[in-house]
Amino acid sequence: MTTPLHQRLSEELRDRIRNGDWPEGSAVPSEAALCQEFGLSRGPVRQALATLRAEALITGGRGRQPIVRASTPSQSFSTFMSFTEWALSMKMQPGQRTLEVSRRPAPAEIAIKLEIAEGESIVAVSRLRLLDEEPTMLEMSYFVLEVGRLLFDFDTDSGSIFHHLRGAGVDLYSGHHVIDAVAATAQDAQHLSIPAGAPLLRERRITSSSTGQPLEYAEDRYRPELASFAVDNTLPQRTALHRVSLDARAANG
Amino acid sequence: MTTPLHQRLSEELRDRIRNGDWPEGSAVPSEAALCQEFGLSRGPVRQALATLRAEALITGGRGRQPIVRASTPSQSFSTFMSFTEWALSMKMQPGQRTLEVSRRPAPAEIAIKLEIAEGESIVAVSRLRLLDEEPTMLEMSYFVLEVGRLLFDFDTDSGSIFHHLRGAGVDLYSGHHVIDAVAATAQDAQHLSIPAGAPLLRERRITSSSTGQPLEYAEDRYRPELASFAVDNTLPQRTALHRVSLDARAANG
Repeated sequence: MTTPLHQRLSEELRDRIRNGDWPEGSAVPSEAALCQEFGLSRGPVRQALATLRAEALITGGRGRQPIVRASTPSQSFSTFMSFTEWALSMKMQPGQRTLEVSRRPAPAEIAIKLEIAEGESIVAVSRLRLLDEEPTMLEMSYFVLEVGRLLFDFDTDSGSIFHHLRGAGVDLYSGHHVIDAVAATAQDAQHLSIPAGAPLLRERRITSSSTGQPLEYAEDRYRPELASFAVDNTLPQRTALHRVSLDARAANG
Repeated sequence: MTTPLHQRLSEELRDRIRNGDWPEGSAVPSEAALCQEFGLSRGPVRQALATLRAEALITGGRGRQPIVRASTPSQSFSTFMSFTEWALSMKMQPGQRTLEVSRRPAPAEIAIKLEIAEGESIVAVSRLRLLDEEPTMLEMSYFVLEVGRLLFDFDTDSGSIFHHLRGAGVDLYSGHHVIDAVAATAQDAQHLSIPAGAPLLRERRITSSSTGQPLEYAEDRYRPELASFAVDNTLPQRTALHRVSLDARAANG
């Protein structure tokens, strides 16, 4: 599929804001200057600027010179899915200590998430994740066997499981994430060097193939003073983030 | 600006999934059937279906009949911003008890968020929010004076501040949200009927005008067993939700 000109341009301009080439508070170059720089006509330049405005990356128009706003850029699928890639994108050092890799029968609550029968074999991986050597998150991942078996050939202390699986051709295509808060268990407390009962930011995730088959169920627990989630929304743009009530959660299992 | 045909069609189809007209697990009508129903050619119909596939609302193609997937639809700006509208969208009863409405000098940490001078007048509103009469969330909102003064004419026990302000012409245009976890204070515990120290899901928010002027800073604390946040992402689609580290948080103030 060919990407439209204005879309490629808005991606390039978004990168400039993300990289700091266009720092917060600086004036966005005029339409004429952008037309000249990219060899484009007014149409795609205007459309690209309208996109950045709708994303609240630059201030609104009506003849005023637009300014780069402070904001949170969107994250690519792999940056959001991979702790390693996320850390590197911030120029921080990712780390991991494997606590457990095991093949075992799926308990009922995991089997439901993976849409398999209770007792079917799964592969469970538990790791402590670090940012610049600071214990930041405890991850528990449960893979369907056909995917998890690829981890027995992989040193889970060495880096990103997401990249290893993608490299092995696994069709990791979509993620469904639910974010809430829980109290640290004794085990959380020990690994994360915090008191038991301390609040943790929890992300539960189902990763599915492009045909909708669940491949992984995961539960990540973050120290909230070290990591959080941010989202921007605007009047013309729906947000992908969804506030969910108890009722909806019960309905979704 | 004219909305392209395929975009209007994908919005209509998204509504059908959201409304349950196209229930989870049902087959999506054929391209031919959709062309006939909407009087459109194949091009926009294919594009609209590709959009829904990229949003993981329907399963992937290759000649297979697409199926409606279980997923979390996106939320409009007002559904995400307004607790009242959110509750009503779930057919639950929203409620609120005002704890405080006051005009006061802005403390330093609030002044920074609102980009005003310390000590400038702001309007602070604190309310307990209920879903079907269950205490669900404690909200603390701080408005710049020009906006907050509109609340002295409003019964904050009666419903949505967001709708009141929008109705009064206030340019509430964008939201920047940060989500983490905190331990309940004694005050949280009393109002939310939970033990002190229990984990709460916290959302902090800056609401700005279309020209980027902050109008409100708010801090909402949810009982995590009653409300959470969910997001879907896919390989071709960036997510608006952003994982943030301590470093980035320090940089953003």
